[in-house]
Amino acid sequence: MLKPGATIGILGGGQLGRMLSVAAARLGFKTCVYEPGGDCPASHVANFHLQAAYDDADALRRFAQSVDVITYEFENIPTDALDILEAIRPVRPGREALRISQDRMTEKDFLSGLGLTPAPYAQIDTLDDLTAALAQIGTPAILKTRRFGYDGKGQARITDPAQAEEAFAAMAGAPAVLEGFVTFTHEVSVIAARGPDGQIACFDPGENVHKDGILHTTTIPARIPRSRQTDAVLLAGRILNALDYVGVMGVELFVTPQGLIVNEIAPRVHNSGHWTQNACPVDQFEQHIRAVAGWPLGDGQRHSDVVMENLIGTDADTWEALAKEPGTAIHLYGKADAKPGRKMGHVNRITPRA
Amino acid sequence: MLKPGATIGILGGGQLGRMLSVAAARLGFKTCVYEPGGDCPASHVANFHLQAAYDDADALRRFAQSVDVITYEFENIPTDALDILEAIRPVRPGREALRISQDRMTEKDFLSGLGLTPAPYAQIDTLDDLTAALAQIGTPAILKTRRFGYDGKGQARITDPAQAEEAFAAMAGAPAVLEGFVTFTHEVSVIAARGPDGQIACFDPGENVHKDGILHTTTIPARIPRSRQTDAVLLAGRILNALDYVGVMGVELFVTPQGLIVNEIAPRVHNSGHWTQNACPVDQFEQHIRAVAGWPLGDGQRHSDVVMENLIGTDADTWEALAKEPGTAIHLYGKADAKPGRKMGHVNRITPRA
Repeated sequence: MLKPGATIGILGGGQLGRMLSVAAARLGFKTCVYEPGGDCPASHVANFHLQAAYDDADALRRFAQSVDVITYEFENIPTDALDILEAIRPVRPGREALRISQDRMTEKDFLSGLGLTPAPYAQIDTLDDLTAALAQIGTPAILKTRRFGYDGKGQARITDPAQAEEAFAAMAGAPAVLEGFVTFTHEVSVIAARGPDGQIACFDPGENVHKDGILHTTTIPARIPRSRQTDAVLLAGRILNALDYVGVMGVELFVTPQGLIVNEIAPRVHNSGHWTQNACPVDQFEQHIRAVAGWPLGDGQRHSDVVMENLIGTDADTWEALAKEPGTAIHLYGKADAKPGRKMGHVNRITPRA
Repeated sequence: MLKPGATIGILGGGQLGRMLSVAAARLGFKTCVYEPGGDCPASHVANFHLQAAYDDADALRRFAQSVDVITYEFENIPTDALDILEAIRPVRPGREALRISQDRMTEKDFLSGLGLTPAPYAQIDTLDDLTAALAQIGTPAILKTRRFGYDGKGQARITDPAQAEEAFAAMAGAPAVLEGFVTFTHEVSVIAARGPDGQIACFDPGENVHKDGILHTTTIPARIPRSRQTDAVLLAGRILNALDYVGVMGVELFVTPQGLIVNEIAPRVHNSGHWTQNACPVDQFEQHIRAVAGWPLGDGQRHSDVVMENLIGTDADTWEALAKEPGTAIHLYGKADAKPGRKMGHVNRITPRA
């Protein structure tokens, strides 16, 4: 168990690293953020910012030696970097969670192996693979690179088998996976945490709405039956246990009349868990730091209903109007340029529990 | 109105500066902390730490030029420093609030002038003054230096007129004020805020319990009649308006059967307002930053009842047990040495509104 005063190393200096740094400070920890970019959101609130590339072996070694435990805000950490870091300090969540979540195909095989239901999928290495898979899965379907995709990037939607060649070309030779569409009534996500001693705590499932491929709102409670909410939480717990996981994980699920389908897992704090900042005594960021530091976890209880809304691009320019709304908490990330599609901040609108 | 991306300068790098820095970051501001000490609590979460003495004119000028507005976490800022800073950037709250709160005698005269009731008091410059004042005010009474006192320092309690000489000697020649004791049923404080446009917002009054001269707990709601709570809030508003105040102020009051007596005012965020962090969408730290930046204020609403408890000295060593308590939010200040009487952190224990 890390004592207050210890240093938490965080790979990645975006908004998730920023909010992790603040949570770590609240528990008396120091933070060191490793991030190639300068003036990154996390550097504003961290004790130290080590600005270096992810393939800079010397810098990675210095980073690991200067901290007591290492965590991260994104899952696409290069394997070589992990090899260097792991030899010096514990990396939490661990290697297995990263191996699985870095590759959509591996992830789906893992979930199927657990007896959980992902959307129909097929491995696509050649155009022939794609033609065959489309015949089996049908359209509409979506072709995705197996690795390094997020927020709709590295994806091609296929509504007619005739588009196969174009979609395959869009992958630029990267190994891919074809996913069938699932007809769902709701998309929900569970923010779950597990400590090194196996203690598990989940926040209530939130209901997500996307816009242009990016999360738009998360609403708590999700408007699904209580029994489905319990199913979702239990399912998340099974995933964490299977991975001997340490930290917070985001588990995205489709709610269908036939049951829950696992969309994807993220081995980190998750945008759909930002609502916890203003509705829970212990939020997802502190929960992650507690897990990584070996502290007792918060129990996931919340005191309020809440709607989280992302501020994308110029949405954040409305800060003055947002500041006038009663019951609205503003979170801006300190990013200078409001590029289209860029996450600039979010708000949590809280109301008493219904 | 300062836009996100602007820099807030904060004089003082203790826990109040630390929590102000985090609140400023949440609104997208950068922070520069001016503090003579190294590795201070605020430096862990601020963008910049300018480590220099309060009489270093060059450093003060560089500080002021590097920020957009200046605020502070303590009221005893040297007048010479203020002269330098004010010539370059706005200092909020302004000079008048500092002039009054830096001197207990001036403060009491100001409050009396407003028609408010402080405890009986008398200016003490000589032993004869003290003898005369004791004859009028009676014992027990408390002799305090007019300036630079906090948490019970620079004070001598007098239970018998025969102790006058000893008490006077303890002031070491500093101008002093004698305060009569007030028989009160409760001590409460109001955390009030005012913006540059005159908008005022108050949090609900909290009930304070002290231990060894240091705040021990603040309980919300205060266990006093609703009408008294309203009186307290209105009184705080009068003080803010009279000072054309900008920022958050802590107003400490004694509740007596005859009415409210003003104990003291602090022109800054206040220990008795820490409960707002876990019971309000906008806490006192963000409220202060909003006021200082000219933003619309939060309305002061709270969603929960709460008891704030300070962690003094080795109290903070109980973090593991505290982390196991449901509904308890921990705030540690990142201080290395748990000296007796030192504020190391606090917890907020929240429960649903009764």
